[in-house]
Amino acid sequence: MASKRCVSIIGSGNWGSTIAKIIGLNVLQMESFEDKVGIWRIKYFHMKVRMWVFEEIINGQKLTELINKEHENVKYLPGVRIPPNVVALPDLESCCHGADVLIFVLPHQFLKKTCQTLKPHLKPGCYGCSLIKGLNKVPGVGVSLLTDLIRDTLNIPCAVMMGANLALEVAKEKFCEATVGSLDPSQGLELKELFETPYFRISVISDEIGAELCGALKNIVAIGAGLGEGLGYGENTKAAIIRLGFMEMKRFIFQFFSKRCKYHDFLIFGRSLHPLSKIPVALCSPQESTFLESCGVADLITTCYGGRNRKIGFALATTDKSVVDLETELLGGQSAQGVLTAADVFEMLHGRGLEAEFPIFTMVHRICQRQEKANHFIECIKHHPAHKCAYHCFEKN
Amino acid sequence: MASKRCVSIIGSGNWGSTIAKIIGLNVLQMESFEDKVGIWRIKYFHMKVRMWVFEEIINGQKLTELINKEHENVKYLPGVRIPPNVVALPDLESCCHGADVLIFVLPHQFLKKTCQTLKPHLKPGCYGCSLIKGLNKVPGVGVSLLTDLIRDTLNIPCAVMMGANLALEVAKEKFCEATVGSLDPSQGLELKELFETPYFRISVISDEIGAELCGALKNIVAIGAGLGEGLGYGENTKAAIIRLGFMEMKRFIFQFFSKRCKYHDFLIFGRSLHPLSKIPVALCSPQESTFLESCGVADLITTCYGGRNRKIGFALATTDKSVVDLETELLGGQSAQGVLTAADVFEMLHGRGLEAEFPIFTMVHRICQRQEKANHFIECIKHHPAHKCAYHCFEKN
Repeated sequence: MASKRCVSIIGSGNWGSTIAKIIGLNVLQMESFEDKVGIWRIKYFHMKVRMWVFEEIINGQKLTELINKEHENVKYLPGVRIPPNVVALPDLESCCHGADVLIFVLPHQFLKKTCQTLKPHLKPGCYGCSLIKGLNKVPGVGVSLLTDLIRDTLNIPCAVMMGANLALEVAKEKFCEATVGSLDPSQGLELKELFETPYFRISVISDEIGAELCGALKNIVAIGAGLGEGLGYGENTKAAIIRLGFMEMKRFIFQFFSKRCKYHDFLIFGRSLHPLSKIPVALCSPQESTFLESCGVADLITTCYGGRNRKIGFALATTDKSVVDLETELLGGQSAQGVLTAADVFEMLHGRGLEAEFPIFTMVHRICQRQEKANHFIECIKHHPAHKCAYHCFEKN
Repeated sequence: MASKRCVSIIGSGNWGSTIAKIIGLNVLQMESFEDKVGIWRIKYFHMKVRMWVFEEIINGQKLTELINKEHENVKYLPGVRIPPNVVALPDLESCCHGADVLIFVLPHQFLKKTCQTLKPHLKPGCYGCSLIKGLNKVPGVGVSLLTDLIRDTLNIPCAVMMGANLALEVAKEKFCEATVGSLDPSQGLELKELFETPYFRISVISDEIGAELCGALKNIVAIGAGLGEGLGYGENTKAAIIRLGFMEMKRFIFQFFSKRCKYHDFLIFGRSLHPLSKIPVALCSPQESTFLESCGVADLITTCYGGRNRKIGFALATTDKSVVDLETELLGGQSAQGVLTAADVFEMLHGRGLEAEFPIFTMVHRICQRQEKANHFIECIKHHPAHKCAYHCFEKN
């Protein structure tokens, strides 16, 4: 009988708490399946799932204690029961000690510090899976992957789980899908086992890079979709913004994160390419098919029709307020991820004189910074380079 | 100086009238451009654009006469000015006599009869462009392309123009995009010149088949999206339905309309493959990239968030009424194209035992026919074959 494997969840916002619920129930179900049916089955995972919680005091009580007593994250996911085998811990070290699988689901600004704290306490052979949507700003260079921060700091492989997943809907068990990107098939399939439920279906792909980048870049497009709505345009225009934004996502990902790209040296430098996993470099390129997975087109659609980034885009078009004021007013001070991502991506494009190739990314950033009027947005799309591609198809033939 | 080329528009619903406005203004602008700027330019198109109108009596007056007097299609596109160089004609023969470009934009049930009437009156060297979204039912075989009906009956090449284009928004000059699919580059670029405006951007691709089929099949998916909404599911679920439907569209198109498909013989029989244009068969396969054009993903999104098919899907989930009753009640007796398309596609799948491979197409049809309860819809998606594809990516590597 194989020894039980341990899962730790690093983060406890609404998405972290939702995933804790899912993983907690999944490992419980594997136990009870054996007990009830009475047939032999490896008890693959340890029943206890640890969740690291940034300690806060809620009405005089510690959040970790509240979660462990009420089995509910009263602050970030009220009304949803978290199974009792999920244990909230305020201390990172004791949360992750001996863990085989580390699920990263914390705000990206805390990732670096968290990894540094974790580093001396990792179990050999463990791996990570990031659920964080964002990019790592590298001053003077542009952006790199958040998972590379994990890989480089901790020297472990790191998969991702991305998809069209508004946390509250998943928490309410409304059917949806997600994508696990994992270069290592055995890790990918283990993650599928941990995450999948009848209402939450997981596809596993090998393209970690494409999946992660789609999850970050779609937020910029969602601001654009909100801008279009705020300017009074209808469904056709919105679909055009989504499609053209999708083309920019694809282009950006292939141009900057493909092994064949002209920034090759930067990438080899910027990515550790799984030093431990001996997987050939060739596999580390983004793949076309990723864009049609849940992490690609589906996540983009959801984000452009709901969510915070669209809301900020709408408000940017209908008011004169700054992004900071709008975040305070509309999002209770939470940041719209797309604003930060657009700024980092813009730095990367601007440094290389590529603004004209990415008009949506560029204009969204400039409008967020109030350097450009919102009503110039549609004008810039009318001359989108994707419309010129028209002729290429004939040249190829 | 080249002789002027003539354009005729066959059909005058809201989409036909919108396109008449665009083409009418475009050919006028080419004229006035020369006159005003005073530089040499071929007057490429004849100023007069003929539009065939199925004659109706509106308040005692003929619709053609009303259009030609008021320069407005008071019945199908009220409030939008059609330029005076667009001339409405009730007689098909005089409408199309001498035309070089025939724009087909009529309800698909009238197409066959119209082509038969036209056949003896065509100008040699003319070609068609279809804006009709639907499929041609071939009893005992399944479905073929509406453009093949045009090609086979008239023995002319036929391009398509498809995209995320709700007619009323285009008529109001809200920015959007469309895709021209044309195997013949010169015809494709001529169509771009006729259709494109600053608010209506055209990409030209060579994949006629893929573009046309996306335009027909997306209506089935839109009924599915409406079902999901009607059943009370949220944005995540809707994005999953759209994505899984998109995968079925892709699979259907490649499986039945690819040169490499196992129904190869049927296709060669079913498609005339441009007997006049001498274009090699190899080019007649659908292409991956088509799905990311406006005719693919963008049209699918628009249709799933607005439009008649989504509305019917919603009503199927929230009432017990038949499709026919719902069409009467909600669409003033107009049919939801997706219901017909789903029936034809189902016949094709059923005859080959492929229902399980296409659960959305299959369930939408069965729910439309009230053979299956609407609330079984999500259950069927939970076991969608696209989720199994997960493992293939590893096998390939």
